[in-house]
Amino acid sequence: MAPIVQAREVHLVERPDGLPRPEQFAVVARALPAPRHGEFVIRNRFLSIDPALRPPLSNGMTPLQAPIASLAIGEVVVSENRHFPIGAMVVHRLGLRDFALSDGEQVDRLEPRPDEPLHWHLGPLGFTGFTAYAGLFDVARIKPGEIVFVSAAAGAVGSIAAQIAKRVGCRVIGSAGSPEKCAWLSDVAGLDAVINYRAGSLRKSLKAAAPDGIDVYFDNVGGEHLDAALPRMRMHGRVAVCGMISAYNNKGALSEGVTTLATMMYNRITMRAFIWQDHLALWPQFLAAMRGWLASGAIRAEETIHDGLEAAPEALIGLLTGKNLGKTLVRLD
Amino acid sequence: MAPIVQAREVHLVERPDGLPRPEQFAVVARALPAPRHGEFVIRNRFLSIDPALRPPLSNGMTPLQAPIASLAIGEVVVSENRHFPIGAMVVHRLGLRDFALSDGEQVDRLEPRPDEPLHWHLGPLGFTGFTAYAGLFDVARIKPGEIVFVSAAAGAVGSIAAQIAKRVGCRVIGSAGSPEKCAWLSDVAGLDAVINYRAGSLRKSLKAAAPDGIDVYFDNVGGEHLDAALPRMRMHGRVAVCGMISAYNNKGALSEGVTTLATMMYNRITMRAFIWQDHLALWPQFLAAMRGWLASGAIRAEETIHDGLEAAPEALIGLLTGKNLGKTLVRLD
Repeated sequence: MAPIVQAREVHLVERPDGLPRPEQFAVVARALPAPRHGEFVIRNRFLSIDPALRPPLSNGMTPLQAPIASLAIGEVVVSENRHFPIGAMVVHRLGLRDFALSDGEQVDRLEPRPDEPLHWHLGPLGFTGFTAYAGLFDVARIKPGEIVFVSAAAGAVGSIAAQIAKRVGCRVIGSAGSPEKCAWLSDVAGLDAVINYRAGSLRKSLKAAAPDGIDVYFDNVGGEHLDAALPRMRMHGRVAVCGMISAYNNKGALSEGVTTLATMMYNRITMRAFIWQDHLALWPQFLAAMRGWLASGAIRAEETIHDGLEAAPEALIGLLTGKNLGKTLVRLD
Repeated sequence: MAPIVQAREVHLVERPDGLPRPEQFAVVARALPAPRHGEFVIRNRFLSIDPALRPPLSNGMTPLQAPIASLAIGEVVVSENRHFPIGAMVVHRLGLRDFALSDGEQVDRLEPRPDEPLHWHLGPLGFTGFTAYAGLFDVARIKPGEIVFVSAAAGAVGSIAAQIAKRVGCRVIGSAGSPEKCAWLSDVAGLDAVINYRAGSLRKSLKAAAPDGIDVYFDNVGGEHLDAALPRMRMHGRVAVCGMISAYNNKGALSEGVTTLATMMYNRITMRAFIWQDHLALWPQFLAAMRGWLASGAIRAEETIHDGLEAAPEALIGLLTGKNLGKTLVRLD
C-alpha cells in the first residue's frame, strides 16, 4: 500500500464579480487517499496560469470551496498504474495543487528532451505555442507577405504568435500595455510596428501602424481592440479569435460594445473563435517547427514565473491586469 | 445610326445621414448618345431594390448628382453589338434608370423560361435567391436536423433562406417586424418558430424559440439581433453574415454595440461575412435546385412591387423601414 500524501489545493471561496481579489482564493490542505489499482500520484512542478482560468470563476463552471483546475506539468511519485510509472513526467489538467491523484484520465506522458527547459512544455512547446501555431496556420491561414496584427502581443500566446508570423515573412504589428512590453516587441521579437494601447487612441495608433490595412488579426483581447481592428481589415481578411480577455472581468463576460461589425460586410471578413484542442492533427508538425525555431533562437520564449502554490492567485491577477510578460507560470519546489 | 433615346435616371442629390428622405433623390432626364460600335441600349423592365443600396449613399461610393446603380433586368432595344441583339433579355448593374447605354461590361444575357415570371430572375432565381443558397450551403454549411435562425426572415433574402433551410430538414426560427410578416412566416413558409422582434425582448423571445440553442444564424440584420443570437449559439455554430441592415442608417454605419462577442470563445463560433459574387461556382446547382423548389411549390416567391421610376426612393425607404414583404422591386412599363 502506497503512503498517504498530504496535498494542498487552491480553492475558490468567493465568486469574483470583476477583477478577482486575493482573498477570494484559499490554499486548503487535503489528505489524498492511497492510490488504488490504476491510480497514481503526481507531484506538480509547474502550473500554467492562463486567461482561460478566469471565466469559469464567475460563470459557475468552477464550484466554490473546490479546487480550481489548470494545466500543469508534474512527475509521478507514487503509482499503481504501469502506464504511468514512478519518475514519469506528465502534462495534465489537475493544476492549482501540489500533489494530485489521477487514474490517467486526461493525463499525457511527456518526453522532455534534456536540452529543453521543462516549463517550455506549458509554453512554446506546449498548448500555448500550439494555440499560436494553430490559430495562425489552421484558423487564419496566414501567408508570407500578409499584414498581421496581434493584440496582447507580449502575452503568452501573443508573443509566440507575433514571432511565428514574423518568421514566416509577414509584416507584424503588435499591441501591448506598457513601455517595457513594447520595447520587448520591438527589440527582441523584432516586430515591424508596436502600439502601446494605453497611450492614446488605439484606433489612431492602429491606422498609423497599418496604413495599408490588416489581412489577419490574431485577437487575444476583444472589445476595444476588435472594434479598432475590424475597419482596418482588408478584403477577405480573417480574425482568429483566441481570447477576449478584455471581457473576462466584466459582468456576464460582456465586452465593451463592438460597433464596427458592419464593416465585416464590405470586405467579407471571417471571424473565427477557436481552441487548440480542435486542431490536434497539426501537433507533430508544430512540435518539429517550434523546436527548430527555439533551437536557432528565431523564437524567444519569455515567461513570468511565480514561486509557490500560494502565489497562484497573485499570478492570475497579475496576468489579468497586464503585469506579466510572456507565459505566466507558478513553480513548485 | 440608331436614334437618340431620352432616358430618365434616379440621382442622389443630398447625402443621407440616417434614414434617407424622398427629397434627397431626384429623377433627372438625360439624352443618351447613339450607341457606337459594340454598344447597345437597354430598356429596363424591373429594378432591384436592396439593402446594399444604402451604405454607398453615405460612404461616398455613390457620387452626388449622378445616377444610383442597382441590379436590373431589361431588354435590348437598340444594338451595335452582335452579342446583345435587339430583343435580348439582360441582367446588369445599370438600374435606377429606364434606359441605359452599355458596352456589355457587367451585363449578362438572361434566358428566362416562358413559365417563369421575368422578375424572379432578380428574386428567387437571381442573386437574391443565390445569396440565400450560397450563405446556407457554402458559408454556414447547414446540415439536415440543425437549428437555423434567420433574421429579417420575411425579407428578400431571408424569406428564401428560411424556406430553403426548412426544405432541407432544418428546424427554422425566423424573426420579422410585423404581425403580418410573422403570419406569413408561420402560415406560408411553415417555420417552426417565429419572433416579432418589435414585440418584447428579442433576447427572451429567442431563448423561448430556441431552447436548445442555434447551430446556424443567417444574419441579415446585425446589431441587437446578433447580440441576442451569439449567446444562444451551440458548439461550432456558424454565423453567416449576409447583411447588417440595422447599422446602415446609423452614422458611419456603426451598429449598436454588440456586447456578447466573448461568447464566441466558449463554443468556438465562426462568423463569416459574404457576398454572392464570391460563390459563383455554385450557381448551376443553385439554379437547378431552386427551379425545382419553385415548380413544386416547396418555396414561395414573395415580392413587393412598386410601379414607375419615381417610386424607387419610396421603395428603398420602405425596405429600410421594414414595410416590404419579400423582394422589393420597381416595375417599369
